[in-house]
Parts: sequence; structure tokens; C-alpha cells
Amino acid sequence: MAKSSFEYVKKFELDDTLLPDTWIIVRLDGKCFHKFSEDHNFMKPNDIRALKLMNYAAYQVLKDFNDVCLGYGQSDEYSFIFKKNTTLYKRRAAKLLTTINSKFSSSYVYYWSKFFGTQALQYPPVFDGRIVLYPSEANVIDYLKWRQADVHINNLYNTAFWTLVLQGKLSPAQAEKRLCGTVSADKNEILFKEFNLNYNKEKEIFKRGSLLLRQPVKMDESGAVISAIVDIHDDMLKEKFWVKYENLLDTKG
Amino acid sequence: MAKSSFEYVKKFELDDTLLPDTWIIVRLDGKCFHKFSEDHNFMKPNDIRALKLMNYAAYQVLKDFNDVCLGYGQSDEYSFIFKKNTTLYKRRAAKLLTTINSKFSSSYVYYWSKFFGTQALQYPPVFDGRIVLYPSEANVIDYLKWRQADVHINNLYNTAFWTLVLQGKLSPAQAEKRLCGTVSADKNEILFKEFNLNYNKEKEIFKRGSLLLRQPVKMDESGAVISAIVDIHDDMLKEKFWVKYENLLDTKG
Amino acid sequence: MAKSSFEYVKKFELDDTLLPDTWIIVRLDGKCFHKFSEDHNFMKPNDIRALKLMNYAAYQVLKDFNDVCLGYGQSDEYSFIFKKNTTLYKRRAAKLLTTINSKFSSSYVYYWSKFFGTQALQYPPVFDGRIVLYPSEANVIDYLKWRQADVHINNLYNTAFWTLVLQGKLSPAQAEKRLCGTVSADKNEILFKEFNLNYNKEKEIFKRGSLLLRQPVKMDESGAVISAIVDIHDDMLKEKFWVKYENLLDTKG
Amino acid sequence: MAKSSFEYVKKFELDDTLLPDTWIIVRLDGKCFHKFSEDHNFMKPNDIRALKLMNYAAYQVLKDFNDVCLGYGQSDEYSFIFKKNTTLYKRRAAKLLTTINSKFSSSYVYYWSKFFGTQALQYPPVFDGRIVLYPSEANVIDYLKWRQADVHINNLYNTAFWTLVLQGKLSPAQAEKRLCGTVSADKNEILFKEFNLNYNKEKEIFKRGSLLLRQPVKMDESGAVISAIVDIHDDMLKEKFWVKYENLLDTKG
Repeated sequence: MAKSSFEYVKKFELDDTLLPDTWIIVRLDGKCFHKFSEDHNFMKPNDIRALKLMNYAAYQVLKDFNDVCLGYGQSDEYSFIFKKNTTLYKRRAAKLLTTINSKFSSSYVYYWSKFFGTQALQYPPVFDGRIVLYPSEANVIDYLKWRQADVHINNLYNTAFWTLVLQGKLSPAQAEKRLCGTVSADKNEILFKEFNLNYNKEKEIFKRGSLLLRQPVKMDESGAVISAIVDIHDDMLKEKFWVKYENLLDTKG
Repeated sequence: MAKSSFEYVKKFELDDTLLPDTWIIVRLDGKCFHKFSEDHNFMKPNDIRALKLMNYAAYQVLKDFNDVCLGYGQSDEYSFIFKKNTTLYKRRAAKLLTTINSKFSSSYVYYWSKFFGTQALQYPPVFDGRIVLYPSEANVIDYLKWRQADVHINNLYNTAFWTLVLQGKLSPAQAEKRLCGTVSADKNEILFKEFNLNYNKEKEIFKRGSLLLRQPVKMDESGAVISAIVDIHDDMLKEKFWVKYENLLDTKG
Repeated sequence: MAKSSFEYVKKFELDDTLLPDTWIIVRLDGKCFHKFSEDHNFMKPNDIRALKLMNYAAYQVLKDFNDVCLGYGQSDEYSFIFKKNTTLYKRRAAKLLTTINSKFSSSYVYYWSKFFGTQALQYPPVFDGRIVLYPSEANVIDYLKWRQADVHINNLYNTAFWTLVLQGKLSPAQAEKRLCGTVSADKNEILFKEFNLNYNKEKEIFKRGSLLLRQPVKMDESGAVISAIVDIHDDMLKEKFWVKYENLLDTKG
Repeated sequence: MAKSSFEYVKKFELDDTLLPDTWIIVRLDGKCFHKFSEDHNFMKPNDIRALKLMNYAAYQVLKDFNDVCLGYGQSDEYSFIFKKNTTLYKRRAAKLLTTINSKFSSSYVYYWSKFFGTQALQYPPVFDGRIVLYPSEANVIDYLKWRQADVHINNLYNTAFWTLVLQGKLSPAQAEKRLCGTVSADKNEILFKEFNLNYNKEKEIFKRGSLLLRQPVKMDESGAVISAIVDIHDDMLKEKFWVKYENLLDTKG
């Protein structure tokens, strides 16, 4: 068998080991999810089923990968943060990126009906992924704040936009024009004065996104403590969050 | 909104553009598919349903990505070859790798029942992926020969092993011992003399793997020619294959 | 000795192996050589001593590194082309880049007086370097044509500019204004009509740059053939050059 | 001018920007300096002229590159540490690496006679270079300790070896055999008992290497404070060093 004469092609695979002791974040984004959400009649501005499915697919990732200490999701994107000293797959970038990406993608399809019931998935969705390194814990906290600030801005806009369209009977173009140039306070006022909607009372999952984290949970009877994956929807832009969860990015975690 | 003070974290995302005018191959591999195949009662040594599902998921990839000129699959792995001058996603490595990986993974779950009928998928499968560059067409041909030589060696071994176990009633350990140190001719002889099985007459898809390629197909009535994705199971180790398919890697393709 | 507890820092050095069987080009550029040329009274538009020193430093590089098959220099830059299958330093990028860069830099200083005589070198010069990969021989040929086209454009401009300044007694600003918007034919005409200078008769080394290559040379008496490093100043933009030097990029070379 | 048709080759030059806010260390090593030191009659085990020339070449680097906050040299190697938030050359790896490497190499030749007087430099030396990233200040401190521990081990060995050869009249092979398997205490004892040499009283520059740093220096008369580059030879393995120089790696520095 002339196998050996072809094996030289293996050498073209280059090493992609990531810098040690540095935070690794994998972020997945739905591809063409604007169209995907229309094809599947997602509620506007937010579809709680879709968000819960995202969270459940992310939960599958955290369940499989103990070295992922945190997940943060909003809209059609999800970020996964590895503990900084992970040596999973020898820190090879493509391996880390694709196993997370694949697990999330196949879980999204596999658990679709758990959240969408009889409404069928029309076609397999696609998520792209990227991998980014951060040298310090401060960077990672700013990363999370960056993504959560993004939720706030987008969700306030979308809430105002779809309220104008669905309740205000404006066309999408009219709604867009109406909101052009407005700041947050303006949008809050439109929602409150014209539609009696207090944005602050919107669901936290819509306003804050979802943080998946590992927490010690006391078992009722035995008193034993196990680590459970829980999702919370707090305001990470506030400092008291980081006081409350001071060990969130614990490198030992 | 203090968004801008966090946006600096975007700068940590580094450019991963791949060398221009160079062949890009993405290879996906099933993770823990030994266990996965047992959990889903795959036929041994080959399960035609599983192979066809792999091919169908790969077909979805080629259907979506016109710049993938070839796919080659065997067992639980699939390689996708981009035409060398592709500029898809500006040749950014992570983007190319993850969209292919995600599309394949979600398609595998989505189309599972098309091939496995009522036998349920027990859990979401995972495929890892890697991306490799090859500077010349000769390298790419050798890559394909390398993967096909791999099929040959593995499939002959597996066919002999499982025939000894299933028909010869050997234990797995006994079968392994029996085959230890044998060359191809020995395995062929065991199969033929002891089990009257002519390995050469085994299904081509088992012996050769599957090559997915784009071929011009003439429409019956109008005479118009369209490009269709077809799967073949030829012997790429023979030179006549490369004469027959001389434009397979046509850079214009 | 607590040596071992610090050795972990070695692991942060990542692999930078370059793609196999791909052309490696290292290009060095003088840093702030506009000022350097003024500080050392370089003749304008070209200083033959400076060009010869560049060539001699490059010659030292080719003499030391047998896997460099070609050098091409012009003005304050020099490119070195490795044969595509080189395995020097296991194709580690930083190693290849810095040894070439260092040898060239130290040679430039070491051999300064060989070309500049008693005119002292005022301070140590600096050359930066970059490393670029090319998958095909056609790319490498186009690279050489690109650099030589650059010489032509720059040298014709500089010749016209400095002739206007030195012989035409224009100020630099006036000369620049005079040449603004002119094409090659205009500059040739200015030189010929106003200064009786036929640009085509300028020294080839000024118009074409210098190509350092390895050529078989017959020894007078014994008839033995050895490989010598020679410099030529031909027009690589013409096809006849590539016919004459058909083995220039011979991968076996 | 057909320039544009070749310019596409520029696109093959890929981005090599280094991760932001991460410590960049460039380390240079003399190539074949064992031979170089023999060719230039370096004193054994240490040649103070050679070490001072290394320090002076490194001083030229720090003088030119304000973003290099520290240099550390020993034997034929020198490390340069950039402040972690440097944006010099947009943090492009090859640019940083080669300009440091070139400046050092050309300075080594340029200033040779300042330290070696009439003893001629026989040929241009070569230094290779590498670039390594460290995410935290603790890593950088461990890096410096790693290099200094290396000096200690090597210098004690070399001192014992050359004392045995030069004063003890052993052959190199005999000296090597004599030291085989000895620990530090053994070597100290050989030096002290047999040659009355107290290793602790050897020159600090031999035992510790040289650290080049920037320090505020008060001008005698005016009282103005300027930043000066000074070299020290302290023991970085002791914690009191890091207390004394608590701002050595100040990111603001």
C-alpha cells in the first residue's frame, strides 16, 4: 500500500496553540438569523422560545465542557468563556472553536421541538464562530459589559420599533424614521406616553440577556453541595454585580 | 450609554486571513463516534445509513457554499475543498471553518430521520474541524489519495475483524490477535477462504469512500446544461481517475 | 536552584512554522534611509557606492544561506527568495527572518568602508524585515516584476527630479511641481530635450536594480563547474529574460 | 507601465498584529557564538569587553525605542521588554522583531572597537531573534528570573570548568568529567578549596547578568529630573529586588 508517499500532506497542518494563561472567549453568531426568525415566525421584538432554546443549547455546551466557566447569550449570539488556565485540547484554537460550535449547532436542532413544540424547524440553521483572547480579568469583564450594553441598545430600539409597528400601526419605514436620531430617554418616553409601556418592567431576559454560570447548590436533604449551571439576567454594568459574583472568573473555577 | 468605553475589547480580535491563491481544505471528524455508533446500533463494519447521512449533510454544505468544489467523506470524517481562488468571507479562517462545521452538524441532526427512520437520535453529535492549506494541485490530489488510502486500510481491517467476530464467532480480543501482523493479502485470504467473501466485491462506498463533486448535467428536454452535485465512489489512487476527471480541481471551477 | 519553577515561561513561545513547499520571501527595508542618505552625502539620484554596499551585504547573505536561491535589491531594500522546499530552521518564520536581517545589517556596517573609503559611517543603520509566502512560481515572478516596476517608476522620477534640481537649478518644490502629473514619456522628454540626457543610456543597475543569483561557472583550467553568486541588471519585465533564465526558480535549485 | 497587474502580490503579506495589552518580549541570541568567541579570543569564562559591548548595543536599542522599558542580557543573549500597552508599529510582530534585531546587530559591529580596541572584528556576527507574549506582570517577572537562573547555573559551571582547565591544567575533557554530576555546592567547594576562589566574590555582572532600565536621575545643579538608562547587576531571584524596584514594569512607564 503506497500510503506513506501521501502522508507528507499531514505536515501542512500547522500548530494553532493559543497563548497560555490567557482568557479564551468563543463567540457564536447566528448566520442570516433575520431571515431565519421570519421563516419561523419569531415573536417581535423578542421570542422567548428562541431565547430559551439558545440558552438550552448553551447549557449543553457548559454541561459537556467543564473548562467553560461562563456563557453569555443575547439575541442570536452566545459567548463562551474558558477559564484562563484551561489546557483542553492543548489549547488548540480550531479544536476548541469547532467542538463548541458543533455542539451548540447540533443541540439547537436537537432541542428545537422542546421549545417550539409542533412548529417545525424549516431547515438546519448555521452559526459562525470566532475565538478571541484576553490577557486580563478586567478585559473579560469589559467584554461582558460590551455585549450587555449591546443588548440594551438593541432591545430598547427593537421594543420601540415593534411597538410603533404592531400597536402604533406604523409601517416599518415610518417607525424607523420616527426613531431616527432619538436617544434612550426619547424611546423610553415614546413607549411610556404613547403606549403606556414602562420599559423598565420588560422581562430581564430581554433587557439583560442571559448569563450561564456554575454555582454551588446545597442539596435539600443531605446538605451536600454540588455545582449547578444556572442562568441569571442581572445588570453586569453595575458594580454591585461584580461584588456579588466576586468569584465569577476565579481562575481556579 | 457607556458603550464606547468597552468597545476597545473588539480590537483583541485578530486577523486570521488565509494566504491567497492557496487551496483551503476543511476536514470535519466525528467526536467520540466509536461510542456514538454503538449508542445508535450502527451495523458493523459499515452502516450504509450512517454513510448516506454523512453524504447528505455534506451535500447540504456544497449546496450552500458554491466555492466548495469537492467533498470527500469516509467513516465519520468529511473533507471540503475550496477552489483555490475563493474569496468567501475574505478567506478568514474561523469564519470558513465554523460555517462549514455548523452547517454540517446541524444538517446531520436535521436529516437524521431521513436515513434512520424511527430509530431515534439519542443526543446531539459533535464534529470537530480543522483547516489546512495546500499550495499546489498536486498536494490536493495527494491529500485525497491519503484519505482514500486510509479508507482502504481501515475498511479491509474492519471487514476482516467483524467477519471474524460476527460470522467466525471469535471474541473481539481473539479477532484482534488473529489479525495482528497480517498484511492486506492475508486479510483478503482469510475473508475468501474462511468466509467465502470476496473483498473486491464489497460495496464501492465502503471500499472507496464518497466523493461529492459538481458535474454538468444535460436536462432531458431542453438540452440545457446545469451543474449538479453528484457522489461517486471511484478509485482515486489510480491514474485513470485523474485522466477521467481532469477538470476536477479546475481553478476556474 | 529554583530554576524549574520559572521554566514554564518557555511554553509561551508559540510555533511559527511556515507552510511547507511554499516560496518564502524575506524583504528588508532601510529605516529612515532618506535621512541616512543625506547624513552620508549619498549622490543623487543614485549613489553607486551605496548600491554596491547593499549588493555586497546581500552577497554575504547568499554566501551563508545556500537555501536562498535569489536576491533582488533596489534603492534601500533587498528581497531574498528561499527555494520553496527549504527546511532551514524547520521553516520557523522568526528564525529565518532575523538571521537574514541580522546578517545583512551587520554586514552593511562591517563592509561600509570597503565602498565608502574614508567617509565615516555616522551611526548604525537599521533595516526592518518582513516575510511573505507565495504558493506558485508565477507569484514569485510577479513579485520580482512588481519590485522591478517599482525601480523603474521611482528611478525615472528621481532622475528627472534631481536633474531639474542639480542641473536645472530648480528648487525641490519647483522640481516637484514641474513633474506633477507627468507620465514616463514626459519625463524622458524633459531629460532629453532640456538636458540632453538619454534615460535609456543610464546605468542598468540604476534602472533595473540588482538580481543576485547562483550560476554554474566553468573553471578555466580544470573545466570543473562550480556555482558562483553573480549579480545582473536585466529587464525582468521582458519575457525573454524568463526564457534565458528558465531555471532561475528551479525548485531543485 | 504595467505596474498594477503585479501589485496583487502585496495581498499575500498577512497581518501579524500582536494581542493588545500583553507584554511583548524580544530575545536575541548570538548565532554560533561559541566559535565567534574563539575566533575573537574572548577571555574565559567571561570576557568583560564582550559583555560591555552587548550592553552598549542594547543601550542603543533602549535609546531609540522609548517603548522598550527593560533590557536584560547575559552571555550572548539579550531580552527586550516592551511596556505592555505599546502601540509601536501598530504592534506588528515582524516590524518590532526586526528593527530591534537590526539595530542591535549593526550597533554590535559599529561599536566593536570601542570595547575591543585594536583587536579586529573578523567577520559580521549574526543574532537571531524571537518574540514572545506574556499576559501578566507575574509572567514577565518569572521570565526575568528564568533567564537569571540560567546565568547562575551556566556561569558557576563555566567558572569551575575554566578554572580547572586554566589553573588546574586539566584538559577540557577531564574538566567536564570532573564536574559531571556535581551540584552547585560541589562546584563552589572545588573553586574554594582547590583554587582559593570564592565564587560569591566574582563580579556581579558575571553572576547576575545586566539589567538595563530607565531611572529618574536628578541633575546636580538645576534639580531637574531626567530619565536615564542605567545598568544594574542585582539578584532578581530575591524578593527584595522587586520591592526595591516596584515600578520596574509599571504599565504607565
